[in-house]
Amino acid sequence: MDYQKILEEIHQEVLPLLDKGKVADYIPELANVDASKFGIHLLTLEDNAYSVGDVHEKFSIQSISKVFMLALTISHLGEKVYERVDVEPSGDPFNSLVQLEHECGIPRNPFINSGALVITDMMISSFEDPRTEFLEYVRDLVGHSEIFCNMKVAASEKQHGFKNAAMVNLMKSFGNIENDVEDVLDLYFEFCSIEMTCSELAKAFRVFANHGRGVIDTKKYITESQFKRITAIMQTCGFYDEAGEFAFRVGLPGKSGVGGGIAAILPDEYSIVTWSPGLNKKGNSLAGMKALELFTTKTGTSIF
Amino acid sequence: MDYQKILEEIHQEVLPLLDKGKVADYIPELANVDASKFGIHLLTLEDNAYSVGDVHEKFSIQSISKVFMLALTISHLGEKVYERVDVEPSGDPFNSLVQLEHECGIPRNPFINSGALVITDMMISSFEDPRTEFLEYVRDLVGHSEIFCNMKVAASEKQHGFKNAAMVNLMKSFGNIENDVEDVLDLYFEFCSIEMTCSELAKAFRVFANHGRGVIDTKKYITESQFKRITAIMQTCGFYDEAGEFAFRVGLPGKSGVGGGIAAILPDEYSIVTWSPGLNKKGNSLAGMKALELFTTKTGTSIF
Amino acid sequence: MDYQKILEEIHQEVLPLLDKGKVADYIPELANVDASKFGIHLLTLEDNAYSVGDVHEKFSIQSISKVFMLALTISHLGEKVYERVDVEPSGDPFNSLVQLEHECGIPRNPFINSGALVITDMMISSFEDPRTEFLEYVRDLVGHSEIFCNMKVAASEKQHGFKNAAMVNLMKSFGNIENDVEDVLDLYFEFCSIEMTCSELAKAFRVFANHGRGVIDTKKYITESQFKRITAIMQTCGFYDEAGEFAFRVGLPGKSGVGGGIAAILPDEYSIVTWSPGLNKKGNSLAGMKALELFTTKTGTSIF
Amino acid sequence: MDYQKILEEIHQEVLPLLDKGKVADYIPELANVDASKFGIHLLTLEDNAYSVGDVHEKFSIQSISKVFMLALTISHLGEKVYERVDVEPSGDPFNSLVQLEHECGIPRNPFINSGALVITDMMISSFEDPRTEFLEYVRDLVGHSEIFCNMKVAASEKQHGFKNAAMVNLMKSFGNIENDVEDVLDLYFEFCSIEMTCSELAKAFRVFANHGRGVIDTKKYITESQFKRITAIMQTCGFYDEAGEFAFRVGLPGKSGVGGGIAAILPDEYSIVTWSPGLNKKGNSLAGMKALELFTTKTGTSIF
Repeated sequence: MDYQKILEEIHQEVLPLLDKGKVADYIPELANVDASKFGIHLLTLEDNAYSVGDVHEKFSIQSISKVFMLALTISHLGEKVYERVDVEPSGDPFNSLVQLEHECGIPRNPFINSGALVITDMMISSFEDPRTEFLEYVRDLVGHSEIFCNMKVAASEKQHGFKNAAMVNLMKSFGNIENDVEDVLDLYFEFCSIEMTCSELAKAFRVFANHGRGVIDTKKYITESQFKRITAIMQTCGFYDEAGEFAFRVGLPGKSGVGGGIAAILPDEYSIVTWSPGLNKKGNSLAGMKALELFTTKTGTSIF
Repeated sequence: MDYQKILEEIHQEVLPLLDKGKVADYIPELANVDASKFGIHLLTLEDNAYSVGDVHEKFSIQSISKVFMLALTISHLGEKVYERVDVEPSGDPFNSLVQLEHECGIPRNPFINSGALVITDMMISSFEDPRTEFLEYVRDLVGHSEIFCNMKVAASEKQHGFKNAAMVNLMKSFGNIENDVEDVLDLYFEFCSIEMTCSELAKAFRVFANHGRGVIDTKKYITESQFKRITAIMQTCGFYDEAGEFAFRVGLPGKSGVGGGIAAILPDEYSIVTWSPGLNKKGNSLAGMKALELFTTKTGTSIF
Repeated sequence: MDYQKILEEIHQEVLPLLDKGKVADYIPELANVDASKFGIHLLTLEDNAYSVGDVHEKFSIQSISKVFMLALTISHLGEKVYERVDVEPSGDPFNSLVQLEHECGIPRNPFINSGALVITDMMISSFEDPRTEFLEYVRDLVGHSEIFCNMKVAASEKQHGFKNAAMVNLMKSFGNIENDVEDVLDLYFEFCSIEMTCSELAKAFRVFANHGRGVIDTKKYITESQFKRITAIMQTCGFYDEAGEFAFRVGLPGKSGVGGGIAAILPDEYSIVTWSPGLNKKGNSLAGMKALELFTTKTGTSIF
Repeated sequence: MDYQKILEEIHQEVLPLLDKGKVADYIPELANVDASKFGIHLLTLEDNAYSVGDVHEKFSIQSISKVFMLALTISHLGEKVYERVDVEPSGDPFNSLVQLEHECGIPRNPFINSGALVITDMMISSFEDPRTEFLEYVRDLVGHSEIFCNMKVAASEKQHGFKNAAMVNLMKSFGNIENDVEDVLDLYFEFCSIEMTCSELAKAFRVFANHGRGVIDTKKYITESQFKRITAIMQTCGFYDEAGEFAFRVGLPGKSGVGGGIAAILPDEYSIVTWSPGLNKKGNSLAGMKALELFTTKTGTSIF
């Protein structure tokens, strides 16, 4: 299949959508991103890469970071992670406190904010230096060391992150946060502020497409069981309140971020990453979702 | 792969679980089912069948019926079905009224009771004789005509179905039910009371595994797009509040019923059906889930 | 104090409000009521009556009926009524199902629809002929027999009463409804369809102002303890989601109805009834509330 | 009436209840209070005082403080206070976040924690030195200066106050908190940690019984309208989720605290304060409520 040609076709088809979405504007650092940016990067397990657009430009990966946070944490703590965070879809906007209050401070899954905050808390308890541990982990997945957090973004998030602060405090009131509230928030916002390119994200997610084994370094990052778990959570919980729609239209496990990125995998085949800052009403990249839908339709590839 | 041997191994491994689950007891007809029953039936697209246990015994398929209801309805009405029922996981027990009230009478998806009740309402509005239409549709999918509703079960369900009645009335108060409340309930309970064997269910679901085209009659029951939609909904919403767990442990799209049946598919490969009346706490067959987990693990097949 | 003059002043002051409210329009029988109607009737325990406006015109008392239903039922069943309905304010719109679902089918208080539906169910279980029993009770309170239900209104309510039907079914699913759902609904809507004049309502409520003893017939309708209970519930739960506002502005225990009536009492002193069909956003009579506020302010009378 | 004899009778009657309640134990400072303590103090507008028990022992008034906070704030800001906090009963446990999230960060009333936190925020914005302002206000109401906060209690509350922190953050995310989250929490916990005796509380509340005018200093602390508002809120929202029960059993506007205090008033007549640390299941003093019920029954005084 001529993947490069398909990506170029897709690029043309999504161009009219670039100004239809709404760039996240709750912090200036995200609001100021150029809405006309678009990139799509495909990386196969045979190490072939295809790309179109702004695939070598760094952007804020935001919630996509939650996949790395979960992977690192379960590779250290194993199944007991799931005693403090469930694995089911939330059926509610991604930052709702209602469910958290009704379910005694146990978040629905690790890919909503509350769940990722509990994961962050576990990382503080487990690692001497969770910042470095996390950054090194992501760098290993990508295969080079030029991956950094954007402390200005993190600080700005913190300044506007009252709903996240409400969640950590609520969970702490239920005993599901062990560490200091401010420490958890600081670290969480740092993790979300990490900046990567489409190309780098595709490299990192290819490890998941390869059942947790590095394609280049052949290191086993997560076990087969952990691979299944992460993939299942991406499939059912990876797109805020639009998991069903994404499963239908795209049919790949993945994770989106409010920065406009989407990373997805077809296990045993490829990873694919899109970036377009304009979001739809549910907070997922408008052009990114369309691009991925076109890709799985044109190539006839999907998990179904 | 020696599928028959694998099924026999699985049978032995799940035997100790048969008395661990809890048979549904809200109506006598279900409560009186023999908890020691177990069947597993695998049917490939190449028309090879493998089975163990009570695979030719009829049981109440209950919510599995919702897949047939949705398929028949979207094959007639198309995408406009989704104006009255959403396609996202519910994140709440399957019969909650809370979400329904907050979301103006629009059910979260067609596989929770409220959603299937709206589908039933559409069927009444669309078909001159929805009873016959539905039964004929299921018989066509199976390939023979010995499929019937159990009117005693339906009557018993109706007698205890006050929560379902509450839901229909609530949705009607929001304008999302067109027909008479009693008519909707009667028909819904009839559809759920349909009885099939593992073998028959596997034949019907194989059509879905074959992207909606009959393997024997080669009839196109649903379009490719409708196949993707139904599969995506099975994947994200097919197991009450346990979709994430099922995706992880089994990794196949499917649908469970309170009668103890589970039907699942691996698109392009096979359909597989288990029956064991003992349920886990979330209402899914305990031994059935385990059997399917063992099957996808032993065969290394799953959508991921 | 020149009560007559005060009432006449009030009449002038509320005239500009008569077209500001919104007449209930969910059934044609209420929608067609003349919005310019206004009446206010004061009746003291010394048997002095003062009135202005349309005080001898019958109107649909609707939810005000719930006070009579509760009084009759607790006079027969005593405190055990409160095992099936609570006595606390609801803090939610008057017909919410959410609280009902979270609190296992026990309504918050007898003056929200769900609570009055449970009271109706108790009446069916307790009385051979609850219709006659209720009507005779109200006629006794008023002191004459020209009080009737409007069966056309009742039928119309039933036809649009799907939310009430949802509530009865939900409560029955929790075991808090003993009788047939349709029977409960029919009777409830009949009780709400009762028609009275301001003058008649004032006579009936004067019995409550007199601690449950008839002023003319000196019959003891309810005990002192029951009087306190009913008064307390009127005070905290009598005005849908506006109990606090009414307590502040008017400062009298009372009950409003969607037909535009408000009946209130100052224990040991008087009963006072207003009628004006235009409602505010919370479903209470706009001019009626203002008239009562002016009355307690001008007379310096209130429970506080 | 021989009030002193009545209080002594009541004392005997509630003695068996003193060990039936449960002392608040979420912070050590409250947990360590002697459960056998009991005091009741009656103070009339004619300046007669009657008392029994430990009425001159300081205790943590906790939520009773919310009445003073509201009074001081509305006396400065007037009605606009109610743009940021509603005046209706909550119908939910006193610290629920659910309602707050559904109602866009506007607390139901100023006597639940979220409401008092918003009031605290207003005080920080309005006063140069809110600490001193508040303490001086309470001292004026009491008539002497020996009223202090217990900084150890405040610090302990802060250490365990994650649910309150969750609420402030959630309200700030909705824009209903102007100041720094930590500042609001610190001040709020300080205000709740104020310690007073039954006798002192009775003096302060007598001002409210006197429509906001000091009995000794004849100063007008709040307007007549503000008096009505505060009294109405005490009546409908003063006892967590037990406002209806208190209205029935006691029939006086008032406010309870988790330290075991209850302060109530009969306007134009008296203030009455009880203290007994053992709480009932809804968080109100078990013996205190009984004592007040006995008092209004024996004296035949109540607002109804």
